[in-house]
Amino acid sequence: MTGARLKHYGWGREGEGMNAEEQAFVLGRYRTKFSRDNFETKALPRLEDLSLRTPRVTPPAALAAFCTTERYDRAAHAYGKSYPDYVRGMLGDYDCAPDVVAYPRNEREISAVMDWAGGAAASLTPFGGGSSVCGGVEPRADGMRYKAAITLDLRNLGKVVEVDQASRAALIEGGAYGPSLENQLKPHGVTLRHFPQSFEYSTLGGWIATRSGGHFASLYTHIDDFVESLRVVTPRGMLETRRLPGSGAGPSPDRLLIGSEGTLGVISRAWMRLQPRPKFRAGASVRFGTFFAAARAVRAIAQAGLYPSNCRILDPQEAYNTGAADGSVAIMVLGFESGDHAPDARMARALECCADHGGTPEPASGDAHLEGAAGIWRNAFIRMPYAREFLTPAGIINDTFETAITWDRFESFHDHVKAATERAIIEATGMKGEVTCRFTHVYPDGPAPYFSFHALGRHGALLEQWQAIKNAASDALIEAGGTITHHHAVGRDHRPWYDRQRPELFASALRAAKGELDPHGILNPGVLIDP
Amino acid sequence: MTGARLKHYGWGREGEGMNAEEQAFVLGRYRTKFSRDNFETKALPRLEDLSLRTPRVTPPAALAAFCTTERYDRAAHAYGKSYPDYVRGMLGDYDCAPDVVAYPRNEREISAVMDWAGGAAASLTPFGGGSSVCGGVEPRADGMRYKAAITLDLRNLGKVVEVDQASRAALIEGGAYGPSLENQLKPHGVTLRHFPQSFEYSTLGGWIATRSGGHFASLYTHIDDFVESLRVVTPRGMLETRRLPGSGAGPSPDRLLIGSEGTLGVISRAWMRLQPRPKFRAGASVRFGTFFAAARAVRAIAQAGLYPSNCRILDPQEAYNTGAADGSVAIMVLGFESGDHAPDARMARALECCADHGGTPEPASGDAHLEGAAGIWRNAFIRMPYAREFLTPAGIINDTFETAITWDRFESFHDHVKAATERAIIEATGMKGEVTCRFTHVYPDGPAPYFSFHALGRHGALLEQWQAIKNAASDALIEAGGTITHHHAVGRDHRPWYDRQRPELFASALRAAKGELDPHGILNPGVLIDP
Repeated sequence: MTGARLKHYGWGREGEGMNAEEQAFVLGRYRTKFSRDNFETKALPRLEDLSLRTPRVTPPAALAAFCTTERYDRAAHAYGKSYPDYVRGMLGDYDCAPDVVAYPRNEREISAVMDWAGGAAASLTPFGGGSSVCGGVEPRADGMRYKAAITLDLRNLGKVVEVDQASRAALIEGGAYGPSLENQLKPHGVTLRHFPQSFEYSTLGGWIATRSGGHFASLYTHIDDFVESLRVVTPRGMLETRRLPGSGAGPSPDRLLIGSEGTLGVISRAWMRLQPRPKFRAGASVRFGTFFAAARAVRAIAQAGLYPSNCRILDPQEAYNTGAADGSVAIMVLGFESGDHAPDARMARALECCADHGGTPEPASGDAHLEGAAGIWRNAFIRMPYAREFLTPAGIINDTFETAITWDRFESFHDHVKAATERAIIEATGMKGEVTCRFTHVYPDGPAPYFSFHALGRHGALLEQWQAIKNAASDALIEAGGTITHHHAVGRDHRPWYDRQRPELFASALRAAKGELDPHGILNPGVLIDP
Repeated sequence: MTGARLKHYGWGREGEGMNAEEQAFVLGRYRTKFSRDNFETKALPRLEDLSLRTPRVTPPAALAAFCTTERYDRAAHAYGKSYPDYVRGMLGDYDCAPDVVAYPRNEREISAVMDWAGGAAASLTPFGGGSSVCGGVEPRADGMRYKAAITLDLRNLGKVVEVDQASRAALIEGGAYGPSLENQLKPHGVTLRHFPQSFEYSTLGGWIATRSGGHFASLYTHIDDFVESLRVVTPRGMLETRRLPGSGAGPSPDRLLIGSEGTLGVISRAWMRLQPRPKFRAGASVRFGTFFAAARAVRAIAQAGLYPSNCRILDPQEAYNTGAADGSVAIMVLGFESGDHAPDARMARALECCADHGGTPEPASGDAHLEGAAGIWRNAFIRMPYAREFLTPAGIINDTFETAITWDRFESFHDHVKAATERAIIEATGMKGEVTCRFTHVYPDGPAPYFSFHALGRHGALLEQWQAIKNAASDALIEAGGTITHHHAVGRDHRPWYDRQRPELFASALRAAKGELDPHGILNPGVLIDP
């Protein structure tokens, strides 16, 4: 990590954010949406004014060199980036801040912190970039079972250790941030090409622990498929899987660890499958009369085996909100890429699938995927996370949730979830809000719909209002057969619905597995399973 | 299942097998290989002459309607299809035959058998088609912890229950045999297209439980990727996962059950992702000067993202043995297919990759994948399993083992494993044998090499000779970094090497998970983990 330090409140580094023009665009849209000239806007507490409790534990001398109890470090590790995190931060509530933040420099130091935490009856929260939007990195201490809270920040394990050109794979440390990881791979002519929205401020270990969704809209949607082997530090010792391109030797050990969200161990290293740097690209933006027409085209493309790297659709309102269209049409952002051969035939066939469902390509020339509606949307997508730090103080509730569902149920599922969320907004805020939908990833058997919602909240009630909307949306998702998360992870916020979705006997098996790897239950208590 | 009953000894149904011409071809090759005019050939015991112990348990009246203690049923469920299974069958050793074979007709009856087995302290062995080549279906009773052995044959759960055309998926019962499953899907215009070598005599549930390797040489190599959701009967009750095209909600429950080899539960139903029936095909056979040249072409194709459905290579000796070439060249069997569009561009690019490594396509016309070397090899591949039932009585040891390894280590790995196996054959039999290699599946980061070996054994010592060779080959695989199985599963035969390959902490986690689902440890004891 280089440059300014990460904000303790907000997205990215200190000094970064939306410029005045971007802010004006975003706020302008909300003024129109809610028919308001202005929003009642709260001031944010300054770091130096936050009141943090006296640390309940002190690092032993042997660990002191890489542990800190500094105000900034504790405040910057109190929260992830969820909507309620922003509200509580705005209110100056840093009660959950860790007592100590450890920055281990190697696996031995990770182990040492685990031993210390176990002995001190402290919870231990693994922390990558801290971009969790579901309460996955918030420290826990209850004064009873967990007498203190220690956060383990992996940023010092950020190296690409080895590149295997023949197998096109690399051994990478778990704390590597997206840009640093790519910068280290670049001289070797390879790339991981895993670009979650949080790319700049999230880590390889975090991606693996949360089954992150990345660049590829089809085929290799989750980071899962790029994991060749893992090295995980557990309270019981090291767990290392064998580097294999494929195996059928019993249930996959990797797949038990992928998605374990810091509850089974800390991913210190992983051999990752890499991609060639793309040399050939084809891209287009395609307009459709309705979102469902676009969805039917997506289904045709997914089932044709064309494997687009991008095949995202935006409903008319979402396209309008990001400035990609005028609100009358749905947009498909379609892209193919290859490091080996021109993908023109696949692009041509995909456009035929679009035409079959009434899709019309936007006129474009040259590097189409960076131009037109697609380019505008892409830019908005990357800048989006910066908006919340000024929208929350303005009392605006904006959040997203995402899921996956099979094609046979998609249209009724979409309508059910959207209607339930719209109703909940009115009930919670007394005023109409907005719920929009896009697809982030697609499969032959169904899409991954991603919903955004916008509501005008009331200071003093923002948490309750948000929770009421979140509950209604999550209930609707689960009732209608979806997953509570396609790639945002479970954390603590999604637990009630994850518990309904997950087979009870699998929960028992997972608890038993955790009992073996983390016998004192220090790792991320409450995430995925009860302590 | 229709037609004659399955052989209690040998491959397929009674009355089936290689005809005289095929037998002469196979035996002729062995006569030349071992410079023998004839082989000392043992007679096989007749079913009616086998001595089976008196059953140690009797099914309760409520289960009697679907349980049997008939001689044929017990003998036909004593063994899988491994080499030592054939030797022991030839010797009339049916000591391991189950006391009772149950043929449940629904999940309720599966549960009832589990309850009975738990109460009677009997082991319970789930049985699909019985094609295990690693001791995965052999019943266990030790008179102590397991007082008797019950086999649960799933053949009566063979229905395609529902087809979802929109999502291109089907709900299929676990006991469905390959041909029956495909026949039921055919009227709907869809196919699972999972064709392991055992296709005719293996079941969907068996494929999933053993992470079977199928038709597709790249991309979708294992059945794992086609599983949308599972329904599993465990001794603790039903475990059913949610039908989802993708999810990031915690570690995948399906992936814990896929590959569990009957130790965690019995797969009664699965929603499976289907394929369109192929409308477009392109195929070729390509000759290479050496196996490694062919392997380098495979690597180029795999890393180019071309996704061939077939990309198998045979070393010169293997190509000769199957009649596909004269022994001077390695052969690549290359195929592309699609239900949507012509794969000609991918084929052309793959042939360029071959040319880059000295590959020359064989002249072919029309449906090339069924012609020439490719066609000859394909036919030999399907007929191969019928040979063992007359080779074993002739004292010929022929067996296969398979693995996967990353590209950086492949060539030295191949040489190490091949040399170790060749040495072991000489040491065990006093005579030179033969070890050949092909690739069955390929990945961007490495191939799945598949070895065959041939040795002239000695009656009275066949088991020991085979075991010595198997040990040497398996030791070499594991030492050199491979997996003990890419798609043959672990069973009991691969346990010693699986235990070395598997991280010890994962073994602990898996044992703990089993303790939750199968608290009395009745399911397939000794497979994957110790009872």
